[in-house]
Amino acid sequence: MEDSPEHRPVHRETRFDADVARYAARAKGMVASEIRALFSVANRPEVVSLAGGSPNISGLPLDVVGSLLNELVVDHGTIAMQYCGAQGDPFLREQITDVMSQVGIDASPDDVVVTVGSQQALDLVTKIFCDPGDVVLCEAPSYVGALGVFAAYQCDVVHVEMDDEGLIPEHLENALARLTAVGRRVKFLYTIPSYHNPMGVSLGATRRSQILDICHRYDVLVVEDDPYGLLGFEGEPYRALRADDTARVVYLGSFSKTFAPGFRVGWALAPHAIRDKLVLAQESATLCPPTFSQFAVSTYLANHDWKGQIKSFREMYRERRDAMLESLADLMPATTKWTTPKGGFFVWVTLPEGIDSKAMSPRAVTARVAYVPGTAFYADGYGSQNIRLSYCLPPPDRIREGIRRLAAVVEREMELRETFGPLDSGRGEGVEFPGPEVQ
Amino acid sequence: MEDSPEHRPVHRETRFDADVARYAARAKGMVASEIRALFSVANRPEVVSLAGGSPNISGLPLDVVGSLLNELVVDHGTIAMQYCGAQGDPFLREQITDVMSQVGIDASPDDVVVTVGSQQALDLVTKIFCDPGDVVLCEAPSYVGALGVFAAYQCDVVHVEMDDEGLIPEHLENALARLTAVGRRVKFLYTIPSYHNPMGVSLGATRRSQILDICHRYDVLVVEDDPYGLLGFEGEPYRALRADDTARVVYLGSFSKTFAPGFRVGWALAPHAIRDKLVLAQESATLCPPTFSQFAVSTYLANHDWKGQIKSFREMYRERRDAMLESLADLMPATTKWTTPKGGFFVWVTLPEGIDSKAMSPRAVTARVAYVPGTAFYADGYGSQNIRLSYCLPPPDRIREGIRRLAAVVEREMELRETFGPLDSGRGEGVEFPGPEVQ
Ligand SMILES: Cc1ncc(COP(=O)(O)O)c(C=O)c1O
Ligand SMILES: Cc1ncc(COP(=O)(O)O)c(C=O)c1O
Repeated sequence: MEDSPEHRPVHRETRFDADVARYAARAKGMVASEIRALFSVANRPEVVSLAGGSPNISGLPLDVVGSLLNELVVDHGTIAMQYCGAQGDPFLREQITDVMSQVGIDASPDDVVVTVGSQQALDLVTKIFCDPGDVVLCEAPSYVGALGVFAAYQCDVVHVEMDDEGLIPEHLENALARLTAVGRRVKFLYTIPSYHNPMGVSLGATRRSQILDICHRYDVLVVEDDPYGLLGFEGEPYRALRADDTARVVYLGSFSKTFAPGFRVGWALAPHAIRDKLVLAQESATLCPPTFSQFAVSTYLANHDWKGQIKSFREMYRERRDAMLESLADLMPATTKWTTPKGGFFVWVTLPEGIDSKAMSPRAVTARVAYVPGTAFYADGYGSQNIRLSYCLPPPDRIREGIRRLAAVVEREMELRETFGPLDSGRGEGVEFPGPEVQ
Repeated sequence: MEDSPEHRPVHRETRFDADVARYAARAKGMVASEIRALFSVANRPEVVSLAGGSPNISGLPLDVVGSLLNELVVDHGTIAMQYCGAQGDPFLREQITDVMSQVGIDASPDDVVVTVGSQQALDLVTKIFCDPGDVVLCEAPSYVGALGVFAAYQCDVVHVEMDDEGLIPEHLENALARLTAVGRRVKFLYTIPSYHNPMGVSLGATRRSQILDICHRYDVLVVEDDPYGLLGFEGEPYRALRADDTARVVYLGSFSKTFAPGFRVGWALAPHAIRDKLVLAQESATLCPPTFSQFAVSTYLANHDWKGQIKSFREMYRERRDAMLESLADLMPATTKWTTPKGGFFVWVTLPEGIDSKAMSPRAVTARVAYVPGTAFYADGYGSQNIRLSYCLPPPDRIREGIRRLAAVVEREMELRETFGPLDSGRGEGVEFPGPEVQ
């Protein structure tokens, strides 16, 4: 612009040597998944993918949403396309308290912080609470995206056992007692009480109460992750943990499964002091969450029967869950076990003894069916006998076809095992991030 | 749902005691600004705000954008509202390489990572590179949002002096020599070469070349932040540092000032190895950047004369800059100095000796004019004699009125000073985050 061209530096041949030593220590916890390559194959149309966690949004009224967004831009574009406050739009935060009232939560919009999906809420909560080496208690298994966050902040994940009714209170108490005895610092319990990812199970009211009591006695914060809370197939939604403990629970919610994930609107509801820190963390992470996304969700909630839409999502997912459970019962070898989800997206399968789900995965993809190996959901290499199946995306007949293929693969595997003995795929490799398509 | 109501826990009165000791050490670096309260006052309509950094997007063709978004939802809604890859939409990344070609950059879409505004790019770069105590070199002064990020990751910011032609190469070399001699680990140089925030100045080609040479010799990474690069008022845009060094420079770009900030679409262009880490960091932070925002920007670029729009933004901002420079010359006390921006949004003012810009700020707001005190742009408490004025948002006549009010306040201040001597507002208070409305 102002200097003459001969001053321009010549192209430098020497490369910046981006060796590992230059990165922050936390970057070591960020590793790509081995199964990621598999997933690009799994996305081929001939493969039935029971792996993804993406919601089926084909039922949304696109014409309605399209014209609402058109109006939004024409009538309020200079606000909707401008920066906003880091805490998020006040009107949307009010609507979010309405949504949360469905799970028994009575909250003020003041205590809501809007985030880039609930994933970012997890990131910010961990960022403000966790120093390297701090302990986070998680269910065993737990949401892969949460494990990715905890790894990125160098937390020590301690898994607490679950059964078909969710997290087992006695095991939680034992873990806390043991950790306290050795002087470890437990920053929070991370839990998905309703329609668990990946297990599909839910905590009943008794256990919810017991878990709150235990966390109260050990003075431990609870991070309640609830993206599926409104997607139950029977009766009323579960009452959130946060509904019965306003001071100890940080509640995370999301519009990804009840509306659409592409706007990336989630939130955290937190006690005042924590909320303040979250707002500061949000400012430094993004300045503000996407204004346009917030207005889009807000206008959808205000002008469309969002509860009716959730009802039809529920019916669609129930039908798919039924298709999956029926075909599992019809087709899988007798020694296979699985959970019976009352909502959400996932069934957790325990394969017959000796089968390694990670080793089997490429063979399943060759047989044109994909799942997520159970090891993805543990920080410590467990889960090799498990797989997570999702019924959210494929239609019922494809689900049946997928289970048929999977059953055949498992049977082959059992035969192989009888011939050659069990294979070991190696434990304790740490958390791998399989990418957003897996979740 | 499944348990009877008597199992419901009673409301707990005891509070989770969110004392400081529970937070991560990094949370101490996240502090709210004292001037934030001032800003809510500054946003009152009777106040002329020369403080904000929000672009003036009133010139955007809202009808065009509205109907493009309507079409986007109706024709591609199930993709545009779904999760996408963590690196960002491939087609948008291709368009981003087109945008970058305007500043001389020849890049592959493969090396672009889409972020939630360039603010998030700054966050992710710092996250993957900086351990607590690592040194980041910044201009003196520097962008307040970057200082907020560096504080959140517990970096040590070392400021390098600038003059009216930007960062001074000799000072950079001295800083690196000094830090190397004492064995400090410099992770990167953070620089805004074109139309600096807050100084308004730009680096010429000679200095750009010298700075790249110095960073090459000391093997230091360069983070080039360029949100204003296409908003120059004279001739061709500056050639980006990245255009002449592909291996050592991470380039950050944004659509916030050339289109609209509310979609929160920015990006990082990085060498392969760093790009891989950034994608993993993005996955763990948000799963993926907002799909809808990306498609919105993409369809705008594809279907609208975006270069023409930038040209009219440029003309509008130049007119406002002229109004500001003229009124400063006409009205400010003789011993006041200021920079002459050739693009961007900001003028950096050095007040007459002995005036404290932070102490003066409430008095300015009382006189119905707002600015950002210079101390916001230093990690070390300097800048108390400076203020940042922005000409991006108010129309020319309001700018003139604002400068008239400001000049009166400064004159009063000089009189006070003559009567009572200089006031000290205290240095070295660390970085405060004044909120997204300031930037
Ligand atoms: C348990 C759980 N938490 C959080 C998320 C993140 O969702 P989002 O960031 O889209 O709100 C998911 C997504 O699948 C999930 O299953
Ligand atoms: C120098 C600089 N960098 C980065 C940003 C962040 O912009 P955004 O996150 O909207 O892209 C700004 C915003 O004002 C800025 O001035």
